[in-house]
Amino acid sequence: MSSHKDFKKYASQFTDWIGAYLSDVEKFPVRSMVKNGDIKKQIHHNPPAGPEQIDDIFEDFKKIIFPGVTHWQSPKFFAYFPSNSSDPSLLAEFLTAALGIQGMKWITSPAATELEEVVTEWMRQMTGIPEAFSGVIQDTASVSTLCAIIAAREKATGFRSNSKGLENNILRVYCSEEAHSSVEKAVRIAGLGSGNLVKIPVDELGRLLPEKLTEAVENDLKKGYKPACIVAALGTTGLCAIDPVKSMGQLAKKHDIWFHIDAAFAGTALIIPEFRNTIGGLEFADSIVLNPHKWMFTNFDCSLLFVKDKNHLQKTFSLVPEYLNTNDQGANDYSNWGIQLGRRFRSLKLWFVIRNFGVKGIQDRIRKHIDLAAFFADEISKHSDFELIVPRTLSLVCFRWKGNKEMPLTMLNSFNAELLEKINSTGRIYLSHTVFRDKYTLRFVCAQTNTEKKHVLEALDVIFDCAGKLKPREC
Amino acid sequence: MSSHKDFKKYASQFTDWIGAYLSDVEKFPVRSMVKNGDIKKQIHHNPPAGPEQIDDIFEDFKKIIFPGVTHWQSPKFFAYFPSNSSDPSLLAEFLTAALGIQGMKWITSPAATELEEVVTEWMRQMTGIPEAFSGVIQDTASVSTLCAIIAAREKATGFRSNSKGLENNILRVYCSEEAHSSVEKAVRIAGLGSGNLVKIPVDELGRLLPEKLTEAVENDLKKGYKPACIVAALGTTGLCAIDPVKSMGQLAKKHDIWFHIDAAFAGTALIIPEFRNTIGGLEFADSIVLNPHKWMFTNFDCSLLFVKDKNHLQKTFSLVPEYLNTNDQGANDYSNWGIQLGRRFRSLKLWFVIRNFGVKGIQDRIRKHIDLAAFFADEISKHSDFELIVPRTLSLVCFRWKGNKEMPLTMLNSFNAELLEKINSTGRIYLSHTVFRDKYTLRFVCAQTNTEKKHVLEALDVIFDCAGKLKPREC
Repeated sequence: MSSHKDFKKYASQFTDWIGAYLSDVEKFPVRSMVKNGDIKKQIHHNPPAGPEQIDDIFEDFKKIIFPGVTHWQSPKFFAYFPSNSSDPSLLAEFLTAALGIQGMKWITSPAATELEEVVTEWMRQMTGIPEAFSGVIQDTASVSTLCAIIAAREKATGFRSNSKGLENNILRVYCSEEAHSSVEKAVRIAGLGSGNLVKIPVDELGRLLPEKLTEAVENDLKKGYKPACIVAALGTTGLCAIDPVKSMGQLAKKHDIWFHIDAAFAGTALIIPEFRNTIGGLEFADSIVLNPHKWMFTNFDCSLLFVKDKNHLQKTFSLVPEYLNTNDQGANDYSNWGIQLGRRFRSLKLWFVIRNFGVKGIQDRIRKHIDLAAFFADEISKHSDFELIVPRTLSLVCFRWKGNKEMPLTMLNSFNAELLEKINSTGRIYLSHTVFRDKYTLRFVCAQTNTEKKHVLEALDVIFDCAGKLKPREC
Repeated sequence: MSSHKDFKKYASQFTDWIGAYLSDVEKFPVRSMVKNGDIKKQIHHNPPAGPEQIDDIFEDFKKIIFPGVTHWQSPKFFAYFPSNSSDPSLLAEFLTAALGIQGMKWITSPAATELEEVVTEWMRQMTGIPEAFSGVIQDTASVSTLCAIIAAREKATGFRSNSKGLENNILRVYCSEEAHSSVEKAVRIAGLGSGNLVKIPVDELGRLLPEKLTEAVENDLKKGYKPACIVAALGTTGLCAIDPVKSMGQLAKKHDIWFHIDAAFAGTALIIPEFRNTIGGLEFADSIVLNPHKWMFTNFDCSLLFVKDKNHLQKTFSLVPEYLNTNDQGANDYSNWGIQLGRRFRSLKLWFVIRNFGVKGIQDRIRKHIDLAAFFADEISKHSDFELIVPRTLSLVCFRWKGNKEMPLTMLNSFNAELLEKINSTGRIYLSHTVFRDKYTLRFVCAQTNTEKKHVLEALDVIFDCAGKLKPREC
């Protein structure tokens, strides 16, 4: 094992490599080109008995592991939602790893807890979430949403399900047909059953239809169900559709139903007033999730969960065994705000990012992404072979090759799936897809930290070129 | 925002600071000396509008944040269970942060998935877990155990609770009175209710009494309950007690109950044959959790969950929405093995650690910790004012100041609590406590990566010195 005197030597080598990687990242195939099993077959199937040198492991990293990396930090990564980083975040992650502390209790590292209180409050101010809310940093939106749904379940059962379990199954949860899969996963984990997740139809833009929600809730009430939670998407994953937050919130309030807002990706855009001012109803929320690790240049994992009543969340998750029972001047122990006992020092990277960018720097970067996406959408609309599936929302553009009028949908869908694979196989850019109203839809998310106009131009070039080559003769 | 050209400059500054920190870590007060609110009051309550330089943020880190750090990487950290790091792990974490990739699906970074398959297989071989088992890296044991309990619930209900929810509440889970709080938390989250967690009494060493478990299960069966899961502790948190794994496993098998082994801390000791050979019955397990981030020199977070039937786990957690539905040559998508969709590239650090230490290097370090703990236990036993609460297990020693025979238990407990606070207030070492059979018990865990004999000698010195100063005249 290396001694600390070697640490500087290796950290310095790694720094050089990382610096070069960050500068060159756009030169690598965005989506890894390896085949299933290519990496595994190059690695010994048994662990080494004796020690190996860091130099040798690092060489293998470069030779074996690196070709199997899909470059999420490439400015030409336009797939899924981004999982962004930035230099201040990366530097802070290095410190976090070096300190190797636990933020489970205040006493186990007071700075971790207190800085988390401060940066979540900063984020609350930046996004215009009402003052009553308190924040906690979870790992992922999957976990933040699970926490919200468990808290909702406890509210609906007066904490009986925590103690007695779900004795009869009358709880219902509501979200749109386009809500993220983590909602259904949470409903399953919570023991409510996916059959009790009511998926409300959406309009032509993928937004939940509020009158259908009202109908569903009122019908359920008549049938003797107990509505426990309504989940609004502030930006769905497929289309970035913005559900009618305010009217959903009013309905939730009327029936005393927990109201959760999933703003994991688009929530970052609340930082720019021109978007924030179009969104009403945050005050109706009981919980809101927003991931700085998506669109706010902060390394994964960093998911913010805001709750209106922190006591309710703590009552849901608090469970203090004797070996953790210390008297710390009434300090806040964040492990009582969620599922995991162990907690990384995640607030440090968020602090570095917000201070190094500044609020205005973050706003500028978000606006730039939106402008670039608008430019991309215009170019797509102008091209005779392409069409938008829905108008662009924020930095997400949903589009497809449109074929000709006689082409059956299945053929059109197959063509677009084939086109996507051809585009991604070039390694020059990386897009992903969704299906909306049976239409296979290409997704272009322009939100990677370092994306510039030239990268968007290259994306257009690749897309039009691939489509041209693939296009059937008759079109 | 800093450009990449500044990255090397700052990374190099941070490397110097980290190198010095790692060398000097034992010089700092192990437990932070700050008071509640000390850190927070030094930080602006509003985010900065404009950008700030990394130099300034780093200065604030050193001045404001650092005094609020409890030094988990100090070789004089003997509290809780450790959350270890090591140079190879830290270096790998730096690479992981720089790549900033997602391991949710194979295609989102093939190397992350394939390396995870390899290193979990290495760990299986190293710990003697039977060949049938497959591994996945979760973040924490809280989540690994939650996954196991959800999987158990689905087994007991034929996957009906995932789809229909828990329709009637007849499921029961069993663990010892000394089991980790994460078991009860998981039972609550799963909707089973803590009232259906049956806590079985333990013997004088804190080990579950198997005949009491048999009785509880059989009584429950008679009453119409359905036993869903039995949890054995391979090393409880309080005392590191080893439950009778084999007989518990046989009972589980007899009644077709999911059998989960919580080996989060002590599981690492399975790597040394002389301990592994004392443990029978791993083959009865359906799931086993073991955290390399505790005793195996790998940065938090890194919790291994091994399952005998990976298809069952995948069926429990798989939920593939269209936007993630890609055809990847039948590749393994690890997000179907647990709760979170987003996943860090955690296998990289484990690969670095296992290769840089080598299996023998890891074994040597574990044996050294055990030997040091044995030495500490001997010294405590020899001291006329102290006694062991239970014989040492592995690297954990549970002891107390014993007072004189006339002293009532409450007074003795208060004295030991006061003694612990006095010890920790010196900043020279950090211990924690538990309560066993009403006895306030000091815990000395000798498992920090870099602990040497001199640190144990210092611990003895601090403990005896503080006790001498605090001791009532009449003793």
